[in-house]
Order: sequence, then structure tokens, then C-alpha cells
Amino acid sequence: MSKSQPIADLASLSAFDHATEAKARQHLDQLTKPQGSLGRLEDIAAWMCGWQRTLKPRAEKAYTLVFAGNHGVTKQGVSAYPSEVTAQMVANFAGGGAAINQLCNAIPSALRVIPLALDQPTQDFTQGPAMTAEECAEAFQIGMDAVPQDADILVLGEMGIGNTTAAAAVAHAVAAGEARDWVGSGTGVNSDALQRKCEVVAQVVALHRPAMGDPLSVLQHVGGRELAAIAGAVWRAREHSIPVILDGYVVTAAAASLMLASKDALAHCLAGHVSAEPGHRRLLDWLDMKPLLSLNMRLGEGSGAQLALSLVRAALATFNHMATFASASVATKSAP
Amino acid sequence: MSKSQPIADLASLSAFDHATEAKARQHLDQLTKPQGSLGRLEDIAAWMCGWQRTLKPRAEKAYTLVFAGNHGVTKQGVSAYPSEVTAQMVANFAGGGAAINQLCNAIPSALRVIPLALDQPTQDFTQGPAMTAEECAEAFQIGMDAVPQDADILVLGEMGIGNTTAAAAVAHAVAAGEARDWVGSGTGVNSDALQRKCEVVAQVVALHRPAMGDPLSVLQHVGGRELAAIAGAVWRAREHSIPVILDGYVVTAAAASLMLASKDALAHCLAGHVSAEPGHRRLLDWLDMKPLLSLNMRLGEGSGAQLALSLVRAALATFNHMATFASASVATKSAP
Repeated sequence: MSKSQPIADLASLSAFDHATEAKARQHLDQLTKPQGSLGRLEDIAAWMCGWQRTLKPRAEKAYTLVFAGNHGVTKQGVSAYPSEVTAQMVANFAGGGAAINQLCNAIPSALRVIPLALDQPTQDFTQGPAMTAEECAEAFQIGMDAVPQDADILVLGEMGIGNTTAAAAVAHAVAAGEARDWVGSGTGVNSDALQRKCEVVAQVVALHRPAMGDPLSVLQHVGGRELAAIAGAVWRAREHSIPVILDGYVVTAAAASLMLASKDALAHCLAGHVSAEPGHRRLLDWLDMKPLLSLNMRLGEGSGAQLALSLVRAALATFNHMATFASASVATKSAP
Repeated sequence: MSKSQPIADLASLSAFDHATEAKARQHLDQLTKPQGSLGRLEDIAAWMCGWQRTLKPRAEKAYTLVFAGNHGVTKQGVSAYPSEVTAQMVANFAGGGAAINQLCNAIPSALRVIPLALDQPTQDFTQGPAMTAEECAEAFQIGMDAVPQDADILVLGEMGIGNTTAAAAVAHAVAAGEARDWVGSGTGVNSDALQRKCEVVAQVVALHRPAMGDPLSVLQHVGGRELAAIAGAVWRAREHSIPVILDGYVVTAAAASLMLASKDALAHCLAGHVSAEPGHRRLLDWLDMKPLLSLNMRLGEGSGAQLALSLVRAALATFNHMATFASASVATKSAP
């Protein structure tokens, strides 16, 4: 990765294998069920085949990467929790006590938590860029390096007090609209703080707009270290054709920044869920992604995406192991 | 169970334990997450506590019961598949080749398939009642007897060529509306057959209306053996306070018949998913049930409900094993 144009090499993007997907669809139509009756499970299975370039798709080896960062913008009173909670929650992840720990036990996945300079919050981006270009590139690289090349599938999550403000700013920078379209209550701010959050997002995107034209410049100016790392992980996963399950608003906004590099940048990503944060649904619509789950969750940590991993595995279990009409001697559809 | 009034003993219905639910909510608010941020997972956990009357809710011991029956109404050309497929699919379940087999492996659950006199289809209910009162009571009893008393949770499914026509008729009998509101393409009939299905449903409900005033009379006249058995299983589960995950249209319609006995009859049931069959969403709305999943599935077999079992287990994993703010030394919300 060159520092000046770290993700400009679009040729390095791996492509979806349409021929294998088509064969997967043919296989699905031979299985003992009415055609298409497994709905999105069939879509997921064929999509996994296309990315993994095989008719034996796998999701056993899953890694759940949770990136954590701190945000100078918390000085603006945009969060319900103090910044110290980020490090406290990272310790909680290490101790096995957080929601994502339990979800990675219930739906087996190797959890890896990557704290990013928690003692050095980003700059308050109402005053200047959140990071230097070097800091942002470094965080992006950490995200790239965090992707295990043997992964069948990645689940991405985050933790960072103040980061729904950064997510809203990134979404507003990338997908336009009005600032208020992208701002929600995050972990639960009151209406005064919500109004303040709205003003901050409008202000910072207007302030930094001239400097934001590509993914890294957006992440540098109004993102945060964990957002840059998430974008790096999504990019590296694509280089290796590893399917990714996105979590909530922060992960999706970080990933969405990559759309400024290529409109095809997120083709290897599934939206695991749609969160209760209203900007998330709007952003998924903008990305033309349909979430697998809608459970009114708004925790982050990769929690919604982790649940979706169970659906992906279920989809592959049916694809890989169901009998065909012929093998099971089941009659096919009557003549119409 | 007396034959004349087999489910009239409403006093035998177990009640939800609101005090335990309230304690569960208090516990949830101590866990290391913003209050309510796990959304429906929190609702599920508290609900399981209320039914299981414990603050250590469990869903390990799950049974997936799939009831199968054959339908004389297939003579009317309402299904895309021939009736023989019901028995062939039961053999496929036994051989481990169907979708539900793979889903019960992926999301561990003990699968039990209960075929109900497949060589004796119900009568074509355009000509008379689908079953005698005795046949219906027998099927209901088989469903009751199929419920293992040691179950933490039940998943209910079905197989039966022609049974979406029966489901539509039951829904129309129970929840009123117009016949066309309740009819969809099932496993995939063409538009002529769909029209025929609509006419059949309107005709049979009008024909049998005077005789249908309680659950068993509805199931007897326009249901089927597997629908009666499902209703029996739901009823028995309630007697034992065992939570139930309902699957698609057929299971939901069978369960909905119990609303004629008590408006509270399905309080121990979750809607696992909403299927692609349009009558299912309408029926869930009528029941005031919000499905956990919406994945455009329309297979039956318990497939959608089985996926939802994974969400219930994930909910309980967080409830039972997350650290509290105090135990993990995580700061709580700032003063507003």
C-alpha cells in the first residue's frame, strides 16, 4: 500500500464468479424443495459459491473482528457515555463479559478485538481533521493486516464512544442528503444532545467537504481509527475474495466510504442486520443492501452481524447436504 | 381429554409469570450494554424467563416436531405437486435429506417427524367435512402426546401436499376477511390453480361455517390431520409452560384456531418468521405477532422457525452470561 494512494489499485479487487453462481443455482433447483422456497437462504448460498469460487461453500472458519477507537468529538457532548467506557469495554471483551463474547460462543466464531490507540483519541473534528493522513493510513493498514487469510467469512464490529457521530458524518459525506437524515440517538442521548449531534455533523461535513474526495480522506477528516480499520478490513477481504458480514451503522458507514473508490467495492459484503439507528436503514437503502435481520438492535460490537452468521451457516448446510429429487426419489412438480 | 369438549378446560392453561419477567428486565438493565440495545433479543430473554419461571432460562433441549398429513382437496387441483410427495418427503426426512434435517444439524435440535395416516387422506372438504370429529380429536391427541415434557422449547413444522389450501380455509374461518385475502401460491401453483384455490376456500368456508364455532370443529371441517396435531401440540406445550416457535402459514393457521378457545391461547408462542405466502403476514397481524425473521421463505417443514431458534439461543446466551456494569467495572451512562 503506497501512502499517497493506498487503495487506488482497483485491479486488485477480486471479481465475483458468475459461472459458479449459475451452477449453484442449478444445484439449488435440484434439491428436495419447491424452487426458490428457501428464499434468501438460496441467494446467500449461491452468493457464497460465487465469492468462494466453489460448489462446496464454507462458513466454518469465521472470524469476528471488533475494532475499537476513541473520539475527540465526545468533547462536544454527543454521547451518553464517557470516553473511558471504550477501554473499559475492551477489557470486558478480554474478560469474556460482553454481548459479543456470548454471541461468539453461541454462534461459534473466533473473536479478535483490536484496540486502536485508545489513549490517543482522534482530534475533535469540529476543530480540524480527526486524524493526520498518516494516522488514518496506519489505522487502515491495521485493519487490512487483521484479516486472517484462511477465513471462510468475516464478521465486522466496533466499539467507540462517540462513533455514531463519526458514522453519521461519514455517511453524510459519502451519501449526501441532509445532516439530520443521518443522525440518531446512538447509545441513547437525550434530545438536546441529539440536536447538538446534528449540528456537529452538519458543521464538520461542511468544514471538511473540500478535502474529502476519496475513502481515506473522508475517514481521516470525519471518521476515526476504528472506522478506517474497518474500511481496511473490508478492502483486504475483497482482495482475498472473503465474504464479509457488516454489522450496524458504524461498520456500514466505514465500509460505505469505499464506494468513493469503486461502486463495486462492497459486492462481497452482506448487511447482517438493520439497527434501530435511523441513518442505518437509509444508508443500506443508498447502498442497495437488504439486511438479513431487523431486531431493533443498536449495540454494535458486531452483535447483529454475528447473529446473521448463523443464517449464512444454515444456508450452506442446506446447500451442501440436502438430497436431490433424484437421489431421494421424490416426485417433481406436476405438469402445469 | 373428553371427546365432546377436548380443550374446554381453560383453567389448565398455564399463565405467564410477570414477576419473573420484571426481574429479568432489571437484570438486563445491569448488563454491560446501553439499556434496550439488544432490542428483540432482550424481549425474547425476558419472555422466556416469564414462561420458564426462572432467571436462568434455557433453550438447549429443543425438539422440532414435523407433522405430516394428506389432503383430499388435492383432487381439486390446488397444488403444484402430487399427493405422493408427502410420503416421499417423510421418507426423505427419515433419510436425513430434507432442508429441516440440515437445519436441525446446523442449529441443534432433536427432529421428530410424525406422519398421520398418510394412506388415508382427509376427505375433499368441498364435498363434506375433512374429517369426522373422532378423527380430528385423534389427530389433536397425537399432537398433544408428541410434546416431550422435558422440552425447553418446541419448534413446530409440517409437511402435506395441499395444506396451504387447508391453512387458508382455517385462517378464513377463524379470522374472517375475504377468501382471496388468505390464498397464495403455496409451493408454486400457476394463476389458474390459484384462482381455483381461491374459489375452493370461499366455497368450503361458506359451506361449513354453521358447524365451525370452536378450534376442533374448524380443524375437523376445513383443516387436516397435521393441522389438528399442531394445534394439539401448541395446547399441550401451553399446559406445560413450554415456549413454542411457530413456523409458516400452515403452522400459524393451525395454532390460530385455538384463538376460538381463548384469546390468550398463543401467548407462549413466538412467530419464527413470516413466509412469502401473503396470507401469513395477514394472519400474524391479526394475531398481533411480530415475526423474528423475514427471509422470503415458503418451504414449511419448520424451516423458518428452526432458524429463529438460533436467535432465541443467542438471546439467552447474552442474558445468562454477560457481565454487569458492576462486575466488569464499566462506567454507566453519564448524567443527562
